[in-house]
Amino acid sequence: MENFEFFNPTKIVFGKGEIQKLESLIPYERVLLLYGQGSIKKNGVYDHVKSVLKDKILFEVSGVQPNPTLEKAQEAIDLIRQEKIQFILAIGGGSVIDSAKFIALGVHYRGEAWDILTNRELMLTQSTPLGSILTLPATGSEMNCYFVISKGTDKLANGSPLVFPQFSILDPSLSFTLDQRQVGNGVVDAFVHVMEQYLTFPANAPLQDRMAEAILLTLIEEGPKSYMTNDYNSRANHMWSATAALCGFIGVGVPQDWTTHGIGHELTALFGIDHGRTLAIVLPSLMWVMRTEKKEKIKQYGDRIWNMKVESDDDVKIVIKKTEEFFHSLGVPTKLKDYGISIEVVAQVTDRLKKRGFAPMGEREAVTLKKVEEILLGAIE
Amino acid sequence: MENFEFFNPTKIVFGKGEIQKLESLIPYERVLLLYGQGSIKKNGVYDHVKSVLKDKILFEVSGVQPNPTLEKAQEAIDLIRQEKIQFILAIGGGSVIDSAKFIALGVHYRGEAWDILTNRELMLTQSTPLGSILTLPATGSEMNCYFVISKGTDKLANGSPLVFPQFSILDPSLSFTLDQRQVGNGVVDAFVHVMEQYLTFPANAPLQDRMAEAILLTLIEEGPKSYMTNDYNSRANHMWSATAALCGFIGVGVPQDWTTHGIGHELTALFGIDHGRTLAIVLPSLMWVMRTEKKEKIKQYGDRIWNMKVESDDDVKIVIKKTEEFFHSLGVPTKLKDYGISIEVVAQVTDRLKKRGFAPMGEREAVTLKKVEEILLGAIE
Repeated sequence: MENFEFFNPTKIVFGKGEIQKLESLIPYERVLLLYGQGSIKKNGVYDHVKSVLKDKILFEVSGVQPNPTLEKAQEAIDLIRQEKIQFILAIGGGSVIDSAKFIALGVHYRGEAWDILTNRELMLTQSTPLGSILTLPATGSEMNCYFVISKGTDKLANGSPLVFPQFSILDPSLSFTLDQRQVGNGVVDAFVHVMEQYLTFPANAPLQDRMAEAILLTLIEEGPKSYMTNDYNSRANHMWSATAALCGFIGVGVPQDWTTHGIGHELTALFGIDHGRTLAIVLPSLMWVMRTEKKEKIKQYGDRIWNMKVESDDDVKIVIKKTEEFFHSLGVPTKLKDYGISIEVVAQVTDRLKKRGFAPMGEREAVTLKKVEEILLGAIE
Repeated sequence: MENFEFFNPTKIVFGKGEIQKLESLIPYERVLLLYGQGSIKKNGVYDHVKSVLKDKILFEVSGVQPNPTLEKAQEAIDLIRQEKIQFILAIGGGSVIDSAKFIALGVHYRGEAWDILTNRELMLTQSTPLGSILTLPATGSEMNCYFVISKGTDKLANGSPLVFPQFSILDPSLSFTLDQRQVGNGVVDAFVHVMEQYLTFPANAPLQDRMAEAILLTLIEEGPKSYMTNDYNSRANHMWSATAALCGFIGVGVPQDWTTHGIGHELTALFGIDHGRTLAIVLPSLMWVMRTEKKEKIKQYGDRIWNMKVESDDDVKIVIKKTEEFFHSLGVPTKLKDYGISIEVVAQVTDRLKKRGFAPMGEREAVTLKKVEEILLGAIE
């Protein structure tokens, strides 16, 4: 096992009706409600929050979009400074929570906020405290310190221990009004978060492996039920799995990949494909192209997740097919051609990765630009 | 899944050599070193800590024993008050860390410190910050807010969110000088911590179940190697499993038992049997006596942990036997007669539990005093 540090101070308040605890969770008077495009007004969450927080002074910034933008965040940064707002309450999914984290840092940074994503040398020492009410189980942002923000067609990620949410309220029933498509995407997103931390090479860390497998098996079992129905328990298990997938616990002391996300982010930025859907496109092809480097873990994944022995390349194909069929069962396609995208994608994505200096990627930096080409070619149809 | 809250702000610093980070982890000047009976002087940890903390003003309280006492804790409370000590560094296993937590609260409580264990109505609002260097993988105290303290033959537990260690340094190699007996006990302790949170009844929480099983399987695989050798990776996996077992993550939203601990604490208090060893005595007999109430989870435990179908009482006997054999492989006996204890134990323990009002116990309060009698009778030989 590699040496590691683990720290995650977010308080999780999980279950139906827990919004009632909101007031005691926010020991501040001036609170910004940050949310998306109005779904919380339709499903009653907005009114509920306002009534529970009736004794606070509330401000609002709405209209945070999927792939949240610098511009919207800047609007909130300006308002927080102007109104001396003390706390940010993000209500929504990963986009809103990611925005809240970036805003929390941006308020106290005197340069251009975008620097926070482009300059890894910045020493940030202060943030506005934040909390979240999660309405979409997917990204895990509710219990970690990472965020992804877009500016034009640039989509970049960063993190800071200063922006762990102080609390996150996870009420599975708040997600019952989601589009089915978002639920399916959310299962895939969580699944691939686990795979990024799991499908690398053995590192003498059997507990982390088994905990990762615990999440994969639960998502395979509960994800399709969560996708097809509004059964509370299935959604609760989907939601808690998505949080567990990226709260850091399964990734301690082990190598991590994150190539699927690296390529996926470019597909979203270039073609507007939903984040979870880009992962479902990239992962199967990556598993095939990197099958030699990932041999031992693919074998273990086949054995423990799909109950099959993986000995040959044909077996690897079967394991990949099972993974794709799982994504399909969630209504998520796995090929670029499903989005009308063809060979032109290869040069576009590799050019961008090259420009950013992102390649080589992966647990052993073995995913060169050449390999990215192969992965994209394999993902076309 | 039941509604739940999860909060655990302890920073884990894991791996060989990480004591080097100690100074930056303690932003205080006046520090109490709290430790046990001198093993840290023999194995070099004491000198190492003193050299890393050479710029601090250090105080010491040593001689904390297994089943740590009120008297020793009071000595530290008095010293902290007198010397205005700002931080407690616990160096040792669960006994030392448990003491540090109790001391941290006791310093700021103006009544008799023992009240903290006997009066659940106390509103404690302040504590002295603490951290730990773990030298014995077993109790999980390094990453939770619970403590067990003894006074005479009373052994009582409590907890407070005020006493999570700010950090815990887990360097597996610091445990290489342990007696083999302590290593074996530690594996059993961690295993039973998981069983207390797992072997109850199904609660629609498949992720928690699988994460519990992940720890059980890892302890079965790595525990005996950790017991027999000083292999770094085996000890590291044992250590991280023991921490994971009681950091709260596997127990969220599910029923819990804790009867084995309830009875075990009395066996330690009455007969001085090591804590982990009492658990190995109680659990197998409890599994048999409560086999109807725990039927579905015993079946799942048999299936997923021991790879066998549990259909009949004879199958339950086999599962229990496998569990006992695992304990034996760690040098830990599973019967009271191994300690020269016979029938007299039944009245002694039940009298004490009755006096404390501890029964009925268990996930459905189904472990009455009558059941405790049966469990003890079954554990004699």
